[in-house]
Amino acid sequence: MNNEIKRILEEVQQGQLSVEEALLKIKMEPFADIGYAKVDLHRKLRQGTAEVIYGAGKTPEQMIGIVSAMKQGGQNTILITRISPEAAREVEAVHPLRYNAAARVAVIGQPPKPDGIGHIVVATGGTSDIPVAEEAAETAEIFGNEVVRLYDVGVAGLHRLLSHMDTIMEASVIIAIAGMEGALASVIGGLADCPVIAVPTSVGYGTAFHGLSALLSMLNSCASGVSVVNIDNGFGAGFLASRINHMDVKK
Amino acid sequence: MNNEIKRILEEVQQGQLSVEEALLKIKMEPFADIGYAKVDLHRKLRQGTAEVIYGAGKTPEQMIGIVSAMKQGGQNTILITRISPEAAREVEAVHPLRYNAAARVAVIGQPPKPDGIGHIVVATGGTSDIPVAEEAAETAEIFGNEVVRLYDVGVAGLHRLLSHMDTIMEASVIIAIAGMEGALASVIGGLADCPVIAVPTSVGYGTAFHGLSALLSMLNSCASGVSVVNIDNGFGAGFLASRINHMDVKK
Amino acid sequence: MNNEIKRILEEVQQGQLSVEEALLKIKMEPFADIGYAKVDLHRKLRQGTAEVIYGAGKTPEQMIGIVSAMKQGGQNTILITRISPEAAREVEAVHPLRYNAAARVAVIGQPPKPDGIGHIVVATGGTSDIPVAEEAAETAEIFGNEVVRLYDVGVAGLHRLLSHMDTIMEASVIIAIAGMEGALASVIGGLADCPVIAVPTSVGYGTAFHGLSALLSMLNSCASGVSVVNIDNGFGAGFLASRINHMDVKK
Amino acid sequence: MNNEIKRILEEVQQGQLSVEEALLKIKMEPFADIGYAKVDLHRKLRQGTAEVIYGAGKTPEQMIGIVSAMKQGGQNTILITRISPEAAREVEAVHPLRYNAAARVAVIGQPPKPDGIGHIVVATGGTSDIPVAEEAAETAEIFGNEVVRLYDVGVAGLHRLLSHMDTIMEASVIIAIAGMEGALASVIGGLADCPVIAVPTSVGYGTAFHGLSALLSMLNSCASGVSVVNIDNGFGAGFLASRINHMDVKK
Amino acid sequence: MNNEIKRILEEVQQGQLSVEEALLKIKMEPFADIGYAKVDLHRKLRQGTAEVIYGAGKTPEQMIGIVSAMKQGGQNTILITRISPEAAREVEAVHPLRYNAAARVAVIGQPPKPDGIGHIVVATGGTSDIPVAEEAAETAEIFGNEVVRLYDVGVAGLHRLLSHMDTIMEASVIIAIAGMEGALASVIGGLADCPVIAVPTSVGYGTAFHGLSALLSMLNSCASGVSVVNIDNGFGAGFLASRINHMDVKK
Amino acid sequence: MNNEIKRILEEVQQGQLSVEEALLKIKMEPFADIGYAKVDLHRKLRQGTAEVIYGAGKTPEQMIGIVSAMKQGGQNTILITRISPEAAREVEAVHPLRYNAAARVAVIGQPPKPDGIGHIVVATGGTSDIPVAEEAAETAEIFGNEVVRLYDVGVAGLHRLLSHMDTIMEASVIIAIAGMEGALASVIGGLADCPVIAVPTSVGYGTAFHGLSALLSMLNSCASGVSVVNIDNGFGAGFLASRINHMDVKK
Amino acid sequence: MNNEIKRILEEVQQGQLSVEEALLKIKMEPFADIGYAKVDLHRKLRQGTAEVIYGAGKTPEQMIGIVSAMKQGGQNTILITRISPEAAREVEAVHPLRYNAAARVAVIGQPPKPDGIGHIVVATGGTSDIPVAEEAAETAEIFGNEVVRLYDVGVAGLHRLLSHMDTIMEASVIIAIAGMEGALASVIGGLADCPVIAVPTSVGYGTAFHGLSALLSMLNSCASGVSVVNIDNGFGAGFLASRINHMDVKK
Amino acid sequence: MNNEIKRILEEVQQGQLSVEEALLKIKMEPFADIGYAKVDLHRKLRQGTAEVIYGAGKTPEQMIGIVSAMKQGGQNTILITRISPEAAREVEAVHPLRYNAAARVAVIGQPPKPDGIGHIVVATGGTSDIPVAEEAAETAEIFGNEVVRLYDVGVAGLHRLLSHMDTIMEASVIIAIAGMEGALASVIGGLADCPVIAVPTSVGYGTAFHGLSALLSMLNSCASGVSVVNIDNGFGAGFLASRINHMDVKK
Repeated sequence: MNNEIKRILEEVQQGQLSVEEALLKIKMEPFADIGYAKVDLHRKLRQGTAEVIYGAGKTPEQMIGIVSAMKQGGQNTILITRISPEAAREVEAVHPLRYNAAARVAVIGQPPKPDGIGHIVVATGGTSDIPVAEEAAETAEIFGNEVVRLYDVGVAGLHRLLSHMDTIMEASVIIAIAGMEGALASVIGGLADCPVIAVPTSVGYGTAFHGLSALLSMLNSCASGVSVVNIDNGFGAGFLASRINHMDVKK
Repeated sequence: MNNEIKRILEEVQQGQLSVEEALLKIKMEPFADIGYAKVDLHRKLRQGTAEVIYGAGKTPEQMIGIVSAMKQGGQNTILITRISPEAAREVEAVHPLRYNAAARVAVIGQPPKPDGIGHIVVATGGTSDIPVAEEAAETAEIFGNEVVRLYDVGVAGLHRLLSHMDTIMEASVIIAIAGMEGALASVIGGLADCPVIAVPTSVGYGTAFHGLSALLSMLNSCASGVSVVNIDNGFGAGFLASRINHMDVKK
Repeated sequence: MNNEIKRILEEVQQGQLSVEEALLKIKMEPFADIGYAKVDLHRKLRQGTAEVIYGAGKTPEQMIGIVSAMKQGGQNTILITRISPEAAREVEAVHPLRYNAAARVAVIGQPPKPDGIGHIVVATGGTSDIPVAEEAAETAEIFGNEVVRLYDVGVAGLHRLLSHMDTIMEASVIIAIAGMEGALASVIGGLADCPVIAVPTSVGYGTAFHGLSALLSMLNSCASGVSVVNIDNGFGAGFLASRINHMDVKK
Repeated sequence: MNNEIKRILEEVQQGQLSVEEALLKIKMEPFADIGYAKVDLHRKLRQGTAEVIYGAGKTPEQMIGIVSAMKQGGQNTILITRISPEAAREVEAVHPLRYNAAARVAVIGQPPKPDGIGHIVVATGGTSDIPVAEEAAETAEIFGNEVVRLYDVGVAGLHRLLSHMDTIMEASVIIAIAGMEGALASVIGGLADCPVIAVPTSVGYGTAFHGLSALLSMLNSCASGVSVVNIDNGFGAGFLASRINHMDVKK
Repeated sequence: MNNEIKRILEEVQQGQLSVEEALLKIKMEPFADIGYAKVDLHRKLRQGTAEVIYGAGKTPEQMIGIVSAMKQGGQNTILITRISPEAAREVEAVHPLRYNAAARVAVIGQPPKPDGIGHIVVATGGTSDIPVAEEAAETAEIFGNEVVRLYDVGVAGLHRLLSHMDTIMEASVIIAIAGMEGALASVIGGLADCPVIAVPTSVGYGTAFHGLSALLSMLNSCASGVSVVNIDNGFGAGFLASRINHMDVKK
Repeated sequence: MNNEIKRILEEVQQGQLSVEEALLKIKMEPFADIGYAKVDLHRKLRQGTAEVIYGAGKTPEQMIGIVSAMKQGGQNTILITRISPEAAREVEAVHPLRYNAAARVAVIGQPPKPDGIGHIVVATGGTSDIPVAEEAAETAEIFGNEVVRLYDVGVAGLHRLLSHMDTIMEASVIIAIAGMEGALASVIGGLADCPVIAVPTSVGYGTAFHGLSALLSMLNSCASGVSVVNIDNGFGAGFLASRINHMDVKK
Repeated sequence: MNNEIKRILEEVQQGQLSVEEALLKIKMEPFADIGYAKVDLHRKLRQGTAEVIYGAGKTPEQMIGIVSAMKQGGQNTILITRISPEAAREVEAVHPLRYNAAARVAVIGQPPKPDGIGHIVVATGGTSDIPVAEEAAETAEIFGNEVVRLYDVGVAGLHRLLSHMDTIMEASVIIAIAGMEGALASVIGGLADCPVIAVPTSVGYGTAFHGLSALLSMLNSCASGVSVVNIDNGFGAGFLASRINHMDVKK
Repeated sequence: MNNEIKRILEEVQQGQLSVEEALLKIKMEPFADIGYAKVDLHRKLRQGTAEVIYGAGKTPEQMIGIVSAMKQGGQNTILITRISPEAAREVEAVHPLRYNAAARVAVIGQPPKPDGIGHIVVATGGTSDIPVAEEAAETAEIFGNEVVRLYDVGVAGLHRLLSHMDTIMEASVIIAIAGMEGALASVIGGLADCPVIAVPTSVGYGTAFHGLSALLSMLNSCASGVSVVNIDNGFGAGFLASRINHMDVKK
């Protein structure tokens, strides 16, 4: 931010810019500069990073338009989340894509080569949690992460989880996804020594209360190193996991 | 019930009892007969079974009086739950007792020799759950059960639980007691092949919501064979475990 | 567990097994051994025990495949819960079955001869609770229990319940199923001297809150010996009741 | 209302009252007339009816002042609810009263002779519900009702309740007071053929949620003729019961 | 109860009945006698009282069958609640009826001549509450009450309510029905001097929470003499209002 | 009120009005006078003010009838809220209107020229909040306010909001509309120095709990000058904003 | 904002300020300029406006220090909210103040002469709501508003409220404060034609749920022109009411 | 795990270990090896890492004992959380420590030199959130992180937060701590491009519901890269932040 304002000030000092013009420039830019543009600059440093479109509530036409604009802006890797099969087919007619029916996400272009610190494990308690898991996994992949899927390793059959101890111990980040009692996050949190992102799902009935039971369970995890995102928020978990798995770029 | 009414009817038939006297007897007895007295009769068959006094909200004087009455009725083994140390001391001055400070229960007389099918395991997730666990254990013991205590085997340190697999596999009934995320019940339910009684505790803070989180978690257990009692209800769990552990007397 | 590892160790000692083979064997087995396999061994001791498929969210094709695999594995008695009439018809075309429309369960093969300690009573407060009750009853039957059905004996017409006192007093386990105010569990819990498993149902409207009212009522039962499972969880109640009714095998 | 305004109008027409005086009278009275005064007039028809002071949050001085004012207004029978023993002693120094320590109510003067249709039964599930019950009973008595107390007749010991069937069947109104699972209201509602006022109490722990469980249970009562008041609202139940028990004055 | 058992005893005494027959008779009757039969006897005293069928969840065939049985039992006035227009048409083909589409109730036969103490006022806050109000009104009418409907007199336009002060002051019982903030019950409770039955409705959106807001508001009414039934429970309110309006038969 | 009654009294005094006529007049008018008529008189002072019809639950026929009646009463500017496109088309066939599909409101006639103190800003956190925002904006416009729309300025992209600081600082009233975490209200409340009306929306999933999360967030706003209306209540916010923006007429 | 930055730019243009100094100045000021300083400038236009200190959680020493700093900054009218009597006494020893014990607020200096559009009415449902009302009233007064207090005009005694119709109709803004069922806001909202700010209070017991019942009631008000602030937030209501009552300065 | 078992197997093969001894070794070690021991080994690689004692519910004696044991085990840097000033004084008499009164944590020994990827920012919305923030900061520091504290930068005064944009943009991990509406997490999440850990606090009153409002707000954050821990869980946030800030060791 400093540099741009400094340049404006220098132009004023040198008489290249009138006070009024400078005032207008400063008024228009600083805040864009703080947030959005900052992200843009940052993005340019890491070429190939994907853009994400939240498909829920958008028409196929709107999505086609946004994708076109992104492509014109030089962005070729695009993830559309929460998009129905029908909408995906319509978008596909214009922009070739790969549709992940379980996750209900569409992937345009090629995910970048994984360049994270390590691999991200996406684990689910049951098979009904897979849609959320796939959303997380696709998100992590499109942001340049290697993903290992460990599905249906819920605590009611602990041996399934324990037989994958190596995978768990070697993970860079683990996304623990479970509905019902959500105990998976605590058990994994107790076993692993990496950050664990817990995702409660709306799987279950009765007192599952559409994910509330799993959410509370995960927030109360007696294991350290566990944090939680919104119910069914696979995208959020995948995005955060990718950030953590690319922490080294902060160095 | 049939036998007693039958006897009354026979006495009427034989003129040993007037219609009015019979009417009074039947009016007074049937309901007592259905519930309370039935238990009494049943109790007589298994000598030595304990009586229980719910101490909360009772004065030491009231408790002394009830104990005296019970002793006069031939009952020498008595459990008082939720009794403060001060109250216990006052009762003790009249009726010798053993006070379990953690459980806040007082035991008068000797628990009967264990005569259940097997042993009852009382497991807790943490050390803060021990008061509830001790209430459950003392209750189970006074009703004639051998109790094995497995404290502080929560899922955040799974190895502690797994190192006691033999104890778990050999249990007749397991009482799984945990606050916070309450995952212990699911993990034990997945490992064991006996009935598991889950007791949520009010241990924790924030979203533990005084036991609600653990309760919901336990009700949603993906493991079969798990049922749940009220938050902090150690007595209820101990009592039910004893009933299950004496199922053979039903045969 | 000890025996199997001991055997492996002896084979290593006797040179029958290389260190690498032994390592692989131990790595693959211990956890399977702890949970799943243990159940299998246990099952072999009691021939004829059923397998259960949770039908919700599975396609007819998936269910047909699972049943085929189970049959190849020698399992001929199979219960499918939460299966729609349409799906049941499709499965039936391949695997003959009996469909219980009220319970929405399909039964393949013959339930084993009842071999429990006594009979299990399945009681409901109203006729709307029957679907949950039938799921519980079918589950109990397929695991080898004699079931006595007491439907529509809610507390608003207490005489209906009381006229079945004999059935209640003779029960080995009682499953008390009710929606709305869920008082049935407390009343039965006060009358019976056997374990009572309470199942809240989502029957009712307004403040029934889809079973929450009944659930809270049952958890607060002032009667001893009552425990609770998830709302509408007929299967869980039937499974647990069967375990309790077969406690004698633990002896 | 019509009559009073009509009289004012006639006085204006006849010149007995100036427009300004009439305006003032109408302005002052109509609303008082609608609510408060109406009650007053009604009260005059039934001599001796009590006044009630809600003691919570009032100082002894304030209560003494209010009582003095009421006495000057000719009111000698006064009920003070939710008054502490200490405050009661201070009031007593000025105005002789009878203090019901369980109910925490003070009674000044003599309750009127019962003149209701029949008697009001006040029933409780347990002994801990007695404070609420006594508040209800004292309220009913001071408004001229005969009260029959049936305490500790909870559904876990159904015989106690059933042994009082005559009392229940002969009641004019029944106040059913219970905490925990609140099943008493449903059971009484199913037995009785008179209006039943259910009062949930904050008795219990854990999932009793300070009366919420009992409240929901009572609102969902499958018995007809049951309505509910606020948790621990003994006064409200007693007042309403009295109104119902004096319905004949409406005739 | 006494009389019937006394007669049985006398027959035994006189040898007219064997002990076994007497035992069977007593076993079969007492409880029926306590609840159901009692109601029946009571009903006989007031000829013409209606029967009610809760239509929800019943097929037209089932309802036709129940009505037929009732008619054979001499009951000609029957109310069916929560019955869809389609089901009503099917029942109508067999049993002539009048269908109240707003209330979704069907009335078979003629309601009895009103014989209550006074009239029952059914008031609603808005027009959306009318379905619940009509269910209450039809129920009250079929049990022999004169009903005065005061619809759309919510507190946001207080003048509408106040312009009906006479109706309110003369009511025997008032049923106050409102959704959203449910303030109608408090305002009517403050104006009237008769029992007020408050019915929260699920009308509203957002924080109306399907009737919860109105329910809480009504339970907290600062006006005395108000009690509450379940959300949308028009039938319950109408039934209870009728009981109160016939209190004089208790005399 | 005084004046009208005074006039009636004077007419009685002068014999121009009989007592009965005066009685009727007073009985009919006072309350109408307090609420409804008062509004009417007030309305006459500000010609052209709109009428509003709450369309939800009304048939097109009913709406056509109400509009006709309003027009006959001289009202030509009418807003119908929560009206479906289909219903709008039917009404349009009789009464020409403009339909705002996003807001689901129909506008009949021309909104009055804005005459408020300043302009009203309607801001939303996201694009999904626009339907609620449009309902608020249309409402404000039809009551004579200039509206500035600031859509999609949620706090996750703060620069978008900050780049409109002038608009915010110059606003007379701001309506802040947001779902999910509802932080927009706090941020705007912290920046602006005018009244802020916060409208939580039901946008979001999982723990958004249909607007509850946004509602709680807004009620807890640490910024002063913020108040809240019901979830999705765009109309209420627009109406209140208009009242505040016309405060000068109170002077 | 524009003016200050413009001045900086002009100084740069004129060589009075180096680029670095200008950069530093802009960097330090803009955001302060947006929010805090803006308020300050605005404040300078209306001399005498008060500062407010939120006393909860602050020590007397801290409060004395803050007041001293404010006085040095030329601010002599200061309101301290949520300050205990003890703390107030300590502050008073240094800074003379007036303590409102009901409101628990301390007022330092003289409130400015009222200069609002009209007067603000602060109404409460009961006497227990007065502490919140006094906090609102003192806040409104210190910001230059005339306040009319209408206490204890709850809807259970509607005549008390209606007898103050003039006050209500003439109000500029009304703050409606009530606990329990919170109906006061709806009734006032239906009567008044000015903005109504509803404040739920934590007064009540049982289902009052510490203000939740009143809050929901107020959010669902069927009257237009009502908005709501946090439970017990008298300050927030007073502050907002003052803003609305000074809307004319926006003109 | 493999290596240790392999070694045991080789010793058996070479006759250095009997089968029985090997069996015992394998039985004792595997699970310790999976969880606890693994952590130990990992710890040895990074010398100086701290141990943490959860002080709540532990007596000073217990804490002294645990610290002594830890010191004997070679651990000199120890953090005790949730310890009262009194307890800290008692521990200090034996083990010298530094007590952070705001955080209620005691630090024994010297925190290691920061060796994380970057610095961790701990930001709070208000001054009341500082205790939770200090717990987080002390935890992060003792695990070897540089911590930058940004206190009282809540969204109601956005300029305070924005004036620290550099600190935010340069952070490695940000812990955003706020009560009330919890908007801080969303605003920071929208500005920063690093992982954000949100900690709701129980600060606030009324609808803050002891942190629930902030919790929901944070879970619904529309900003990506935000995850949440339990209410007031400063330790958990600090621990997780440290793990993320040391992600490079995973490489």
